This record gives sequence, structure tokens and C-alpha cells, in this order.
Amino acid sequence: MKRHYSEQLADLKETVLRMGGLVEQMTHRAVQALVERKAKLFDDVRAMETQVNQLHIDIDEICLEIIALRQPTAKDLRFITAAMKINTDMERIGDQAINITESAEPLLSVPLLKPLIDIPRMAEIAKGMLKNALDAFVNGDDALAAVTIKRDDEVDQLKDQVFRELLTYMMADPGTIPRAMALILVSRHLERIADHATNICEDVIFMVQGKDVRHQGPLA
Amino acid sequence: MKRHYSEQLADLKETVLRMGGLVEQMTHRAVQALVERKAKLFDDVRAMETQVNQLHIDIDEICLEIIALRQPTAKDLRFITAAMKINTDMERIGDQAINITESAEPLLSVPLLKPLIDIPRMAEIAKGMLKNALDAFVNGDDALAAVTIKRDDEVDQLKDQVFRELLTYMMADPGTIPRAMALILVSRHLERIADHATNICEDVIFMVQGKDVRHQGPLA
Repeated sequence: MKRHYSEQLADLKETVLRMGGLVEQMTHRAVQALVERKAKLFDDVRAMETQVNQLHIDIDEICLEIIALRQPTAKDLRFITAAMKINTDMERIGDQAINITESAEPLLSVPLLKPLIDIPRMAEIAKGMLKNALDAFVNGDDALAAVTIKRDDEVDQLKDQVFRELLTYMMADPGTIPRAMALILVSRHLERIADHATNICEDVIFMVQGKDVRHQGPLA
Repeated sequence: MKRHYSEQLADLKETVLRMGGLVEQMTHRAVQALVERKAKLFDDVRAMETQVNQLHIDIDEICLEIIALRQPTAKDLRFITAAMKINTDMERIGDQAINITESAEPLLSVPLLKPLIDIPRMAEIAKGMLKNALDAFVNGDDALAAVTIKRDDEVDQLKDQVFRELLTYMMADPGTIPRAMALILVSRHLERIADHATNICEDVIFMVQGKDVRHQGPLA
């Protein structure tokens, strides 16, 4: 069994942050590849996914070990179960980054339909939400988590804007449909990354306040 | 504190199955509303979501109470943490059923683009996967879970088929784009329901075998 209890908890925090950094980078490079038209960056995203998958397994193991051997108190137990849920959401953010590479890759060999403005903006907000969500987790900062949840609306609005704009392209010229569809899918993958960041924030608030903020009106 | 330990575990199983039955019904009625063009059924889906949201909170509470007060053994601990993960996936299946109502509702006031065949088929498979996944959970049946995971490929193939077919409609007549897009989105929501059922099966295999089957080649 590993060292002191406090070291195990610190190890858990550190591993969660490492995985969070990786899925943030995956998101960043997947969109950068699309914007800068650099297919090489898609390979980076796929290489990082292998590391993320290993961390996903590691974090669950660390959590189960702590629960089984340390019989944590109510507060620590909420921290550890939050880590397990956050682990799942981070892994799915990685999956969405992979989905972005798959939707975006065919676009690199054809002319751009339009300059990309809203999609990089969505990526910036989603990455910022993830970063704040994980800071809120390690610092037990429920106020930061609550503020971060609100940003999900911006991402949803940008997604709707992307959809409406690309619909006009498709209606005007059916030849644009495959390219427009690919961009619509990229925007939906980014929306889901923001959703996962929102889930993490909700878990942090539950962890700190012992109160379930899920399913409360507009945030639900 | 509630009764005997075995009763608490039985209560947990029963509550998971109740929630599973509800999200299966939500999926069923959302697609039935689209196929039979009955907007009334969308209201049923929304009414069930309120119950699902309450069960989502209840299950987490039951699990935390058992872990905190009973200090479960390794095997029971894996059962309880599996229940917490399955809880999250079931809640998101409910969200996807709501997404189906939102994508499908505008289609009820316009003529059908084409007879719906693949989408009801996807719904059947996804519901069957969910049912098997939960049976596998309550019976600790890792073989059933493993067989069920394989069906996810059928759902993915149907989703690709729906996409390709509707693309030809859109290319031939841009006037069909909004209706085709709505059906493509419905098929993607169903694909995600099957993904959540797959996640549940993976959790069951880990619970039974204590082995992590996630991230192993083609299933990952």
C-alpha cells in the first residue's frame, strides 16, 4: 500500500490535473489542425489519446484503492467519488477531440467554405471552461464552478449560430453540403466538450456543498 | 440508517432498474412520437424526465450512504461504484431522449421526407442494449455484457447509412435540408444512447472481473 493518506490524495489530484491538461491539449490541437490546415497535428491528438486512456484506468484504480483501504470520511469520500466522475467526463472530452479530428480531416484536402471564426471561439471557451472546472475541483472552489457553468450558454449560442449560418450555405449551393455538415459536426463535438466541463463543475459544487445542483431549472 | 446491508443493496438494484425502465420508455416514446406523428407522446417523455432526474439524485445518495456507513468489501465496492457510473449513463440516456423530442418535434408539422425504417431499427437495438446492460448489471453477468457491446457496431452502421441516404436527398433538393438534418440529428442521439449502454456493459465487466476492458482495441 502506498505511503501516507495525504500523499495518496495529492497523487490523485495531480493525476486528474495531468489528464485534464492532456484532453485540453487534444481539443486545442484538433481545432488548430483544422484552422491552420496542418494534418500533422491530428497525429498528435491521436498519440495523446493513448496516454489519456491509460490515465483513465489509473485514476479509477487510485480511487478504488483509497476507498477500499482508507475508509474515507464523508468529505474525502465526496472528493474521491467526484474524481471518479470527473475522470469519466475527461475521458469523453478526449473522445470528442478524436471525433473532431475525424470530422475535420476530410476538410483539409478541399477549399475552405468560409473563414473559421465561431468554431475557434467555441474551442477557446470550452477549453477555458475545462481549465476552470479542474481548478475549481483541486481548490474546492464552488464559486468558480458556478460561474463556469454559466459560460455553457455562450457555447450553445455559438453552436446555433454556426448551424444557422451553414444552413444558408447548404440551401444556396448543395455542393457545399458535405463541407458544411463536417463543420456542423465539429461544432457539436465542441458543444459536448463544454457539456462535459459543465458536468465537472456540477460535481465540484456537490463535492463542496454536499448539495446536488443538478436538475435545478435552467442549468439542468 | 436504513435496515440491513443486504436490503440496502437490494434497494439500490431496484432503484437502478426503475430508472433504467424509465429512460428506456423515454427513448421508446420519443421515437414512437416521430414515427406515428403523435406530438402528445413528447409530453410523456418530458414528464418522465422529471422522475429520472429525481432518481439520479436518489441513487447517488444511496451509494454514498452505503460506502460511508458500511465500508463495503472490494466486490461490493465495485458493485456500488458501478451503480454510480451507470446512474450517470442512464441520466444521459434520458437527456438524449429529450434531445430526440427537440430534433423531431418540428418534423411533425411537415410532410415526411421518406418512410422511417432505419431510425426505428436503431431505437430497437439501442433499447435492447440498455435492457441487456442492466440485466447484466443486476445479475453480475459479464458474458451478457460482452455480447451486448458487440451490438454497438450495428447501431453505428445504421447511423452511417441514415447519414449517407439523407445526404443524397439534400444534394438533390436543398429544400429537404432542414428535414434531413433533423433526422440525422435523431439518428445521432440514438447512437449516443447505444454508446451509453456500451459504457454500462463495460462497467459491468469491470465489476465482475475486476478487469478494465475499456480502451482495448476495437471496443475502446
